[in-house]
Amino acid sequence: MGSRRRARRDNKRERPSCVAPAYVKRQIPYYEFLDEEGLVKLEQQADWLIQEIGLEFRGDEEALRIWRAAGADVSGTRVKLPSGAARELCRTAPSQFTQLARNPQKSVEIGGTSQVFAPVYGPPFVRDIEGGRRYGTIKDHENMVKICTQLPSLHHMGLVICEPCDVPVSKRHLDMLYNQIRYNDKPFLGAIINRSCAQDSVDLMRVLFGPDVVDQHCVIMGNVNTNSPLLVDKVVTEAARVYCAAGQGLVAVPFILGGAMGPVTTAASIAQALAEAMMVCAFTQLVRPGAPFILGNFLSSMSLKSGAPTFGMPEPVMSNLIIGQLARRLNVPLRCGGALTASKLPDAQSAAESADSMLSTVLGGANFVLHAAGWLEGGLVTGYEKLVQDADRLGAYQVLLSGLPVDENALARSAYGEVEPSGHFLGCSHTLSNYETVYYDAKLSDSESFEQWEDRGSKDSARRAYERWNRLINEFEAPALDPATHEAVSAFIERRKRELPDAWY
Amino acid sequence: MGSRRRARRDNKRERPSCVAPAYVKRQIPYYEFLDEEGLVKLEQQADWLIQEIGLEFRGDEEALRIWRAAGADVSGTRVKLPSGAARELCRTAPSQFTQLARNPQKSVEIGGTSQVFAPVYGPPFVRDIEGGRRYGTIKDHENMVKICTQLPSLHHMGLVICEPCDVPVSKRHLDMLYNQIRYNDKPFLGAIINRSCAQDSVDLMRVLFGPDVVDQHCVIMGNVNTNSPLLVDKVVTEAARVYCAAGQGLVAVPFILGGAMGPVTTAASIAQALAEAMMVCAFTQLVRPGAPFILGNFLSSMSLKSGAPTFGMPEPVMSNLIIGQLARRLNVPLRCGGALTASKLPDAQSAAESADSMLSTVLGGANFVLHAAGWLEGGLVTGYEKLVQDADRLGAYQVLLSGLPVDENALARSAYGEVEPSGHFLGCSHTLSNYETVYYDAKLSDSESFEQWEDRGSKDSARRAYERWNRLINEFEAPALDPATHEAVSAFIERRKRELPDAWY
Repeated sequence: MGSRRRARRDNKRERPSCVAPAYVKRQIPYYEFLDEEGLVKLEQQADWLIQEIGLEFRGDEEALRIWRAAGADVSGTRVKLPSGAARELCRTAPSQFTQLARNPQKSVEIGGTSQVFAPVYGPPFVRDIEGGRRYGTIKDHENMVKICTQLPSLHHMGLVICEPCDVPVSKRHLDMLYNQIRYNDKPFLGAIINRSCAQDSVDLMRVLFGPDVVDQHCVIMGNVNTNSPLLVDKVVTEAARVYCAAGQGLVAVPFILGGAMGPVTTAASIAQALAEAMMVCAFTQLVRPGAPFILGNFLSSMSLKSGAPTFGMPEPVMSNLIIGQLARRLNVPLRCGGALTASKLPDAQSAAESADSMLSTVLGGANFVLHAAGWLEGGLVTGYEKLVQDADRLGAYQVLLSGLPVDENALARSAYGEVEPSGHFLGCSHTLSNYETVYYDAKLSDSESFEQWEDRGSKDSARRAYERWNRLINEFEAPALDPATHEAVSAFIERRKRELPDAWY
Repeated sequence: MGSRRRARRDNKRERPSCVAPAYVKRQIPYYEFLDEEGLVKLEQQADWLIQEIGLEFRGDEEALRIWRAAGADVSGTRVKLPSGAARELCRTAPSQFTQLARNPQKSVEIGGTSQVFAPVYGPPFVRDIEGGRRYGTIKDHENMVKICTQLPSLHHMGLVICEPCDVPVSKRHLDMLYNQIRYNDKPFLGAIINRSCAQDSVDLMRVLFGPDVVDQHCVIMGNVNTNSPLLVDKVVTEAARVYCAAGQGLVAVPFILGGAMGPVTTAASIAQALAEAMMVCAFTQLVRPGAPFILGNFLSSMSLKSGAPTFGMPEPVMSNLIIGQLARRLNVPLRCGGALTASKLPDAQSAAESADSMLSTVLGGANFVLHAAGWLEGGLVTGYEKLVQDADRLGAYQVLLSGLPVDENALARSAYGEVEPSGHFLGCSHTLSNYETVYYDAKLSDSESFEQWEDRGSKDSARRAYERWNRLINEFEAPALDPATHEAVSAFIERRKRELPDAWY
């Protein structure tokens, strides 16, 4: 067994990710954390917020017109709906949909028992153990696209794996979309920072997939945040009007730091997040009934020492589990959680917080998990090492989600015919016929003897991760892209870059 | 808020641990991972093993005599029971019992919804970031007792927090018991390596608590491993005959590395572990019906690269959840899991593996968790930093186990009277009256700004943990111990040391 294995390890080429499933089909039960009474109270609170307090919709007259046309109580920019009405509007949102990738083998199902993992989104800084902490560049973005597209436990690419801060803000979306198209064949997100960026994203998909495919399928999604508490600005409504009007997806995510953008008690912040996301879902269904929608949730706790956000703490762990229950009751796909941490470094704090955050995300049944890899420092930094460390653990969660077989082979009665009490199972035929597939092979986990480990340089997890991501970049081969498509995509991007001003804010 | 908080941080004294609960009362639902059909299959497999294969009981004629007297099918050293008989014998084992501590406030309930955390047990080596890896000494053991007794998230002390390798094997148990009695007032375990050590442990408790208390209460427990597969040696049966005969507790733990001491498939190893632990439970109840017993389970997966044990992988995560279900069906307290890792260092691998291992232990409902803090390198090393890192996370799990309040205060409707949409909740009265208690305060987690963190020396988790455990040792004050009791304990230990030879194996 030893030598066969050694041969595989010395063969440094990664297995191509296309042999891995494009996404995870959950085969384990949900963990029903909160009881029926508690769930009903949270739903009633969300309804109460929508009916009695209402949400502000600011900066987009067309959004208010849409609400008025639907019969909402609109007073100035305040929108209220009678209890139950928002939930009723959400009923046309699909419980499950497919986002196509340009490689059909990598298209993902979103919703139901599918779980899809994507890397961190949005950090302006990057960090690696040799280069330290610095602003992200378009080269970093390209590197990270190349890394993530090769990691089989990442099924979706997000978009802004880091902010390319060396490119004008007005043009970043085009360069990032280029990287996602050129170096990757998994699905990804579009831009949302303003209406024109959103429109560019959808238009570019028409170039990549052809307009008919885009008309009939979800090929891209926008991911937007409400301005908690209870404010929805035009970034959200315009993105909805671009993406959903084109039949594309929208992920709407209340980001609530408890005690700041929502009440300090977790239950209240969960209910507020439900109210906000439900109202955006209702809005998308007014824009286009049946538009793909993902109910988002991002709750964070707070340090009592500094008022700074904390991550991986027990309160968001509970909220991941509970929002999962609420989303299933609403029958829409859920985005929540991720491998979150406040730590600056890919150290023990980072890993512990990320693990608790991510395991509860997985158990909670999140269908689309942004920030599943690479997140450091409260989302300000993308860690190169953290990307591959997290991906390694995501593979473990994927195994967990597949459940435990209890069939005849798993019960192994025949092995007890070969192995007497006090014997050992290493050489028995049941072991030999099962050992290659039976345990998760964590690429970054060291389990060698102390002496072997010392001989190989006493490397810690971060050092091994550094070597791995460098190897992934060095060995990268871009997935095939039809030259004519590449030319059309490039031409679109060049044209839009000429048309747009160089704006840095 | 900031200055009040800062005052607390600068006051470096830890809050005394006696304000923390002595153990955790679980208030969240169990996660029912495996379905009824799967559970029944595992139970039937355990019954099949006991009836058709049988267990070896070697080296203790008295154990065989006890089995024969109970009507078991004993052939040579092989003991078989008809299907269901072992489970029937287990019925007299209490579903819940109390282990007294010498400080009554720190006595623990074991079983039911109680969950009790204890540090690592047994590593011959210790490690800290300044001193590196080295053999443990009795001074290390004393240090670790002083650290653990101050950590409020550790409710029980185990015994061998590290092996004191500078003390003769024949006398180690006496020095370790002395440290546990002198520097600690939480409950702890007794020695088991041979009958005389076990007897010393119980006898010493008679000195510490008085013989009447020991006759009527569980004040100490022995923790023993079966010799998987399906072998129970005299260490186990003699420990049962000493501890249980005296009305004290026994923890019996099959340690199964899948593919070596059990079949390579997890389901089979779970069933085998159930069979082994159930047979030891049955044996304890033959020794003394009603003797406190904890059903143990220690399953590990294997590296496909080296055949070495791995930890924190998805297969043991599942087995923690499933063995919890099986133990509840048997209605006996459960020991399983811990904060396990194969990592050599308190790094990201260590923390990720420990987190997944421990969170599943917690969700699985383990009643007694040895190895909940300090474990490194597959159990060969106790990490000083790891002890306090793990304890910090145990505090988070304790909060998780207490569940999420969804009452009027938690729903915070009044806050929306003070805070308008798009406002913020930082200064509102609901936040002010709740913020001090509402979020877990993780002592070792850094959530400062990057600049603050850099100003304070850019310390990683291990460095902060190093500072914390040193502070705990420097500030240690031994809990009060009646001088006459101390004298009697010392006299007992001195006498036994004179009587025992200096043996090093």
